Amino acid sequence: MSLPDSQLPQKVTVYEVGPRDGLQNEPGVVPLAAKRDFVTALAKAGLPFVEATSFVHPKWVPQLADAKDLLASLEPVAGVRYPVLVPNMKGLERALEAGVDSVAVFLAASESFSRKNTNASLAETFERARPVVERAKAEGLWVRGYLSVVWGCPYEGPIDPNAVAPLAAALVEMGVEELSLGDTIGVADPAGVRRVLDVVAPNVGLERIALHFHDTRGTALANVLAGLQAGVSVFDSSAGGLGGCPYAPGASGNLATEDLVFMLDGMGIETGVDVEAVRAASLAMAEVLGRSLSGRYAAAGPFRPQGKIES
Amino acid sequence: MSLPDSQLPQKVTVYEVGPRDGLQNEPGVVPLAAKRDFVTALAKAGLPFVEATSFVHPKWVPQLADAKDLLASLEPVAGVRYPVLVPNMKGLERALEAGVDSVAVFLAASESFSRKNTNASLAETFERARPVVERAKAEGLWVRGYLSVVWGCPYEGPIDPNAVAPLAAALVEMGVEELSLGDTIGVADPAGVRRVLDVVAPNVGLERIALHFHDTRGTALANVLAGLQAGVSVFDSSAGGLGGCPYAPGASGNLATEDLVFMLDGMGIETGVDVEAVRAASLAMAEVLGRSLSGRYAAAGPFRPQGKIES
Repeated sequence: MSLPDSQLPQKVTVYEVGPRDGLQNEPGVVPLAAKRDFVTALAKAGLPFVEATSFVHPKWVPQLADAKDLLASLEPVAGVRYPVLVPNMKGLERALEAGVDSVAVFLAASESFSRKNTNASLAETFERARPVVERAKAEGLWVRGYLSVVWGCPYEGPIDPNAVAPLAAALVEMGVEELSLGDTIGVADPAGVRRVLDVVAPNVGLERIALHFHDTRGTALANVLAGLQAGVSVFDSSAGGLGGCPYAPGASGNLATEDLVFMLDGMGIETGVDVEAVRAASLAMAEVLGRSLSGRYAAAGPFRPQGKIES
Repeated sequence: MSLPDSQLPQKVTVYEVGPRDGLQNEPGVVPLAAKRDFVTALAKAGLPFVEATSFVHPKWVPQLADAKDLLASLEPVAGVRYPVLVPNMKGLERALEAGVDSVAVFLAASESFSRKNTNASLAETFERARPVVERAKAEGLWVRGYLSVVWGCPYEGPIDPNAVAPLAAALVEMGVEELSLGDTIGVADPAGVRRVLDVVAPNVGLERIALHFHDTRGTALANVLAGLQAGVSVFDSSAGGLGGCPYAPGASGNLATEDLVFMLDGMGIETGVDVEAVRAASLAMAEVLGRSLSGRYAAAGPFRPQGKIES
């Protein structure tokens, strides 16, 4: 079922993942001051959520080993949360010590992806996540749950939406406030988005669902449109499209925040985000990284008419 | 008005513009044999229209100065047309001498764009196009009309859809079989696509309309989805996203054929196009050009699951 244009969400929450999901995939470690400036600029650009870092073990993600120091360096911006990823109870404890007010846990929709990335079965990862979510809730934190490879797994191939539905329901039953469904390898299309939402939304509630698309094959904004038309109003994106090249040089990862906001602005959907301020932050980070960005808008820039030409 | 999913077009015609619209924007001249191989590969990939070249004066577009020789070198492929762009009567005459069976004329939706590119008013360009279309029709050719900068002009800014409608109607009244509405600078969004179709389609008929999107700011496939939902079933695209960098290095021009076909395949919409064959043609051309492609799918490649991981 597709909403008529007049009933699309009028406001959308853009959940920024660049500082965490983007920078964790960079080959080098970005200096703390540059991360702080990046996160702060994104917060000041009007993004209500800026996922700042991860408390995964530094051995696995040395790029984010400075998580605690980064959080200590951030200035509060009114109305902005800086969630952090916590892979396990140890990570949550470090996050709590750092004084965070919101965390995210990360699970997969495929058995093989789970085994490859955590050396544990899906069932085991869900059982391990439960006390983490419960503890976070008990500490008064806002908790998001990621469900990855929802539209396709690099090992197993396409994922049956009917296998996704109980996993999504399990995460919500654990207590997550928001459930982010991820197209981790960028294989979703609008019909597939609809198929997943049709079976997942009735159990967990549309208002809890965020969609996390990758633009690996160009479909990210078409998938966002399909999500909007199904009534979803929270979308993840990454400034400049940071988030790495899962397959090939030049291949894009995360949907770029600027591309998302450009489209929503054009459609008259309110985000509160200043696209040019995001772009400035992305370009500054690109300079630090010494590379170009995969985001389309970041490369192209705004539509600035040059003035009429008279006869 | 948005069609329900079940009523989206079940078949889409992909109109390939890479050899003309792509290569005319390259800084260098591609050797004839490489062009021939490119056009032939695209035709064999199942694309029913491959716009092969242009009979614009070689002084203006030296990249396509070999138009006649290229056409002579092409082998016919069953069911495939090789339209050529003809800017004026002289171009049409050269095209007729070369034995073409289909041509395209090119007009703008903005006065300033017209003046800048042709040194003539919109009214003058339409009057000059009329006898070209009439002559082509009299010769039995299939004729397409392009209307460019429909969603925004680099000089004037946004274009009022109500100003587009009479221009579109004028082109159809001249006799063009197909009308391609172009977002030449990549500023359209799905709501804007709907606004234009709402006023243009009633006059010219949905079945005559093709949509030509640029992915400059990432919205091309979202715009295609909006077009499909309005009932459009012809879309232009360019193999590999060839078509240049209108603003900045890395900025994308034309929607990539592979990205379009990947999405339509996923949605179960038939095109008859083999996406991997298109990608192979694009990668071969990228080698000739000595650069990477802006198309997402061309860079990322197909979704090839690696096999389940057992415990």
